[in-house]
Amino acid sequence: MAAGAAALVAAAGIVRADEGMWTFDNFPSAKVKQAYGVDITPAWLDKVRGASVRLSTGCSASVVSKDGLVLTNHHCVAGCAQDFSTPQQDYIQLGYAVASRRDERTCPGMQAEILTNISDVTERVTAATAGQTGQAFVKSRDAAMGAIEKEGCAGREATHRCQVISLYQGGQYKLYAYRKYSDVRLVFAPALETAFFGGDPDNFNFPRYDLDASFLRLYEGGAPVSFPGHLRWNADAPSDGEPVFVAGNPGSTSRLLTAEQLETLRGVVFPRLLTQFAELRGRLIAFGERGPEQQRIATHQLFGVENSFKAIFGEQEALNSPGFMGAKHRADDALKGAVATDANLRAATGDAWGEIARAQTDAAALYPAYSLLESRPGSGSDLYAYARRLVRGAQERAKPNAERLPEYADARLPLLEKTVLDAKPVDSAMEQLLLEFWLTKLRESLTADAPQTKLYLGRESPEALSRRLATSRLGDPALRKQLWDGGLAAVRASDDPLIVYVLATDEAARAVRKAYETRVSGPSDRAAARIAHARFAVYGTSQYPDATFSLRLSYGKITGWTQPGGEVVAPFTKISGLYDRATGAAPFALAPKWITARARLAGDTVLDVSTSNDVVGGNSGSPLINAKGEVIGAIFDGNIHSLGGDFAFDPVLNRSVAVSTAAITEALEKVYGQDELVRELTQR
Amino acid sequence: MAAGAAALVAAAGIVRADEGMWTFDNFPSAKVKQAYGVDITPAWLDKVRGASVRLSTGCSASVVSKDGLVLTNHHCVAGCAQDFSTPQQDYIQLGYAVASRRDERTCPGMQAEILTNISDVTERVTAATAGQTGQAFVKSRDAAMGAIEKEGCAGREATHRCQVISLYQGGQYKLYAYRKYSDVRLVFAPALETAFFGGDPDNFNFPRYDLDASFLRLYEGGAPVSFPGHLRWNADAPSDGEPVFVAGNPGSTSRLLTAEQLETLRGVVFPRLLTQFAELRGRLIAFGERGPEQQRIATHQLFGVENSFKAIFGEQEALNSPGFMGAKHRADDALKGAVATDANLRAATGDAWGEIARAQTDAAALYPAYSLLESRPGSGSDLYAYARRLVRGAQERAKPNAERLPEYADARLPLLEKTVLDAKPVDSAMEQLLLEFWLTKLRESLTADAPQTKLYLGRESPEALSRRLATSRLGDPALRKQLWDGGLAAVRASDDPLIVYVLATDEAARAVRKAYETRVSGPSDRAAARIAHARFAVYGTSQYPDATFSLRLSYGKITGWTQPGGEVVAPFTKISGLYDRATGAAPFALAPKWITARARLAGDTVLDVSTSNDVVGGNSGSPLINAKGEVIGAIFDGNIHSLGGDFAFDPVLNRSVAVSTAAITEALEKVYGQDELVRELTQR
Repeated sequence: MAAGAAALVAAAGIVRADEGMWTFDNFPSAKVKQAYGVDITPAWLDKVRGASVRLSTGCSASVVSKDGLVLTNHHCVAGCAQDFSTPQQDYIQLGYAVASRRDERTCPGMQAEILTNISDVTERVTAATAGQTGQAFVKSRDAAMGAIEKEGCAGREATHRCQVISLYQGGQYKLYAYRKYSDVRLVFAPALETAFFGGDPDNFNFPRYDLDASFLRLYEGGAPVSFPGHLRWNADAPSDGEPVFVAGNPGSTSRLLTAEQLETLRGVVFPRLLTQFAELRGRLIAFGERGPEQQRIATHQLFGVENSFKAIFGEQEALNSPGFMGAKHRADDALKGAVATDANLRAATGDAWGEIARAQTDAAALYPAYSLLESRPGSGSDLYAYARRLVRGAQERAKPNAERLPEYADARLPLLEKTVLDAKPVDSAMEQLLLEFWLTKLRESLTADAPQTKLYLGRESPEALSRRLATSRLGDPALRKQLWDGGLAAVRASDDPLIVYVLATDEAARAVRKAYETRVSGPSDRAAARIAHARFAVYGTSQYPDATFSLRLSYGKITGWTQPGGEVVAPFTKISGLYDRATGAAPFALAPKWITARARLAGDTVLDVSTSNDVVGGNSGSPLINAKGEVIGAIFDGNIHSLGGDFAFDPVLNRSVAVSTAAITEALEKVYGQDELVRELTQR
Repeated sequence: MAAGAAALVAAAGIVRADEGMWTFDNFPSAKVKQAYGVDITPAWLDKVRGASVRLSTGCSASVVSKDGLVLTNHHCVAGCAQDFSTPQQDYIQLGYAVASRRDERTCPGMQAEILTNISDVTERVTAATAGQTGQAFVKSRDAAMGAIEKEGCAGREATHRCQVISLYQGGQYKLYAYRKYSDVRLVFAPALETAFFGGDPDNFNFPRYDLDASFLRLYEGGAPVSFPGHLRWNADAPSDGEPVFVAGNPGSTSRLLTAEQLETLRGVVFPRLLTQFAELRGRLIAFGERGPEQQRIATHQLFGVENSFKAIFGEQEALNSPGFMGAKHRADDALKGAVATDANLRAATGDAWGEIARAQTDAAALYPAYSLLESRPGSGSDLYAYARRLVRGAQERAKPNAERLPEYADARLPLLEKTVLDAKPVDSAMEQLLLEFWLTKLRESLTADAPQTKLYLGRESPEALSRRLATSRLGDPALRKQLWDGGLAAVRASDDPLIVYVLATDEAARAVRKAYETRVSGPSDRAAARIAHARFAVYGTSQYPDATFSLRLSYGKITGWTQPGGEVVAPFTKISGLYDRATGAAPFALAPKWITARARLAGDTVLDVSTSNDVVGGNSGSPLINAKGEVIGAIFDGNIHSLGGDFAFDPVLNRSVAVSTAAITEALEKVYGQDELVRELTQR
């Protein structure tokens, strides 16, 4: 985030040009009309909503053909391509294509979800938590949400998912009903060196030259889903200044947090996340350098770690930028001041900011154990995730719905079960690496003398213990099925080392969760809801909520920007630029198919575009839509300034980055010979 | 740093109990007399100074026998032990001992230095810089220092080294004359698992159970140096509350920096250092896991990286602790306010704080390139360091003394030449790892499009380029000698890939250094000197300067502390506690010799002690001295709270940690059978 950050925060309460990740039931159509002369009608919104896809694996997408073809990013399907790969056939390095639809294969653990209805349940959730504090507040809220979700989709669980979305930090609760598709198949993916040309060095940069696009297809009953409501594929390149829209699921922003909460991020959370990601990155790079097979196995894991590292590093820079935190404090003070002048508001809000500020001491003290034991245990180990879900799944399903951990409530079970039971490969060397890393960080962060460290390590070293745990047989889907179906008795009878380990240690993880909910999230969430209501009262309801990986629509235009140093960045790159930038050395090497196809390609085809839309991670794969509601690209990144967007939107510098349908069409035709796919998209 | 941090900084100008790293010419003897009833006489100071050793490799030590035996830490000689090791004989894992003095071997690149005289040269340096700004200020100052150093040791260069020490951030300059010993031989080192029992998890912790002690010997003319002025070895354990002193060379503190400079550390420098150390750590761990030989090669490098990481992580926590930065600003404001009330002082100080604050924008912008290209290039690669020194050495020696980069001035050349020419092993796989890491960080930090990145990488990848550079033949001391002696002609004629590479890139490194000196260090250093004089004027001269790896004396007592949570930590650990803590799994495994010796050892022998002395890194190996001037231990660490000592001393929590002479003597006798060494120490 650049120089303007402080000024941006100071003006909190005022929404700037192109700012906002708006919900579909509160979209500022009048403002868009005024700024861009475009009519965003209810029908337009319904059409776009009805073809906008959330992928349960953490991405966005859109349906772009009547046969359920789905456009998303390559990096949104790379996990799937990696799961399909073998030492003999590496779909990440070579790309993935099928000879015919019959060969399209189901991506493990992936579910596509399309929002069908929004209803307000704020009153019911709020009533359930009235008078509650600490963990009781959390438990009452979660139980109410679980009940609403269960009732909301009662009788149509096979085809629908209901989810209560907390908006405005608990200021509103909405029930989102989704049509779900749990058989999503991979259709086409380019090679990594094409999709992610420039690699980590170019990530979050623009100008950019990536074909970060891939295709999935929705299936039901073993056949492609007929989808008349799909978005129209427009393969013409957009023009500079053209108004554009992004429909997708931004993952998480922190714009409504208080200054004290941001100080905890800056001083406690980010330093730990960053140094842990950095060390894991180093371990994965060195692991990959052991040989081609290790390289293959580490590729997607490394991408995820490097991507998270770079994003959080940029966010940390924004928090550390001169003046930012002072401006944030002043913005908080402005709202506090407005509340203080209104007796009713003052009474309703109470000392909400003070309650949050006081919870930060506990947040700092509890964060290391909370993150390592409860919220991010295993450092990405699939085997650990299986063991945790099997153990807790058995324990929780034995309880009434309202008393369970919310992620095990009835409405959440179908997708959870899918992630546990779908078959996918597990590499034991990688698992050992991840478990060893996790256990060393646990010991380092909590110290060797902490009771939790003694429980988790016993007298073993992280190295030896991780080797033992990595012998777990939970990579076998049949065993997982047996333990899932067998419930608590089967789990307790298991001699699998990871099941035994999780059974022996999980009480400590639950204890730190309880402490965290009692002393941190309970008080903070309760206070944040009152701040949200104060904000509505003072600034009106033309506000947008922080991102929560739920469907949003942002508006803006095709545009470059001017760097703080004065350099003007144009909004387009061309296919010819890809060839200019290539050095022959990874990650700036061209895929062989692109070298061969060079003469056939129209070099002036627009490849990537920069737009002013307000977008963050989770929006990856979102359709870039023109005023007519046609898809003209897929968002895959933001520029480096967009990383400050976690905390404030900067209309001058914050840009999102998309790959154009023009380039995708050109490449499908002339590089990949995917004529059938092109026909399906263009309906020619 | 704990809760008290803010209060500590707020009281700047007031020196607290046991605070201070005092120069020997300004030691607060009266204060010590008052607090502890001990007379620190000029004779006492001369005696201790005359036996206190600075090791050019970054540690402290003391002469403890009439035959020039030197006590220091194991981790101060581990680099030497690693240099002696081979795949067949690993002195790090097994320890190092000699059958007789004849077998003592010279440590590569190590010089021992004993301070013989201090003289004030402030006026001469200040006069040389009068009216100068920017880089001219830096150049004039450095030229004056170089001339003073050359004159100071003229005619006795073979046995002496002269060094101008900048104190109080340029408020004073003193010429320190040292008797130097450039043939320092390794006598005894325990195994790593004994010296560093508990490894990284226990580093900066107490209670602690490490025998972090080793012995060197000073040689001259091929024979041990006769040293009648050595400190007396007292093998009796100290008692709780006993006054103790530490004479050594604390490396660097930042207590006198302004708040804005600390904000640059927190927001720019530390996040980069920490994430780079973390990733390199990960790469080294995974490299070591490839096999026993890789493990052997990576051990010492990994220790250094983990130690730096943990120290800076703790320092970053101190800067992020609630209230710290606000208190620092208030302390600055207090001094500014005092200056403002005195017209003369106001005129002399000018806008010194503003000048430093304004330089921070440039500091932030230039730091990545400055650190990667100029101040820390090669990420620890020995081959790169050789190439840089050979290239610059040839270029700089061709200039008059006053015009050289200061590190190549005549007074600095003898030690520099020693580090370049001494033979030591170079592992090309490790070199490749370090160079690859450096080049990836260069590209990541500066971006792929930066002209510097294009110059340093060309069209090669970091991976391929580092492989090529690691084929350098500069590991051969004969080639280095030929290039050093051959000067610029020989260097230019060389086809060694690293020499060619440094010749092609070094102008860019010099350019960023010039920019940094012009816009950051020049203005900041010039302003800091004026703040130092203002501080003397307002708070008097009973201040101590920030640490600068020059000889200091600190005072305090043997004492534990009470944790913020109420837990009382006793000041001693015993040998029996080592056995209690051992789990059998590294790094909590006992060395075989200690398992065998258990029954012979007096379990209640004091092993490690905690003291209230104000000590930081660089003090490692410093003698812990009793009131009689006898050595009773060797400082090897501080507790976790001591890491905040970089910015403020906390007398309640900050503790240094030493290994006792009692334990060293007991172990030499009963574990290692080093009877002759014990006789030499105890003069029995």
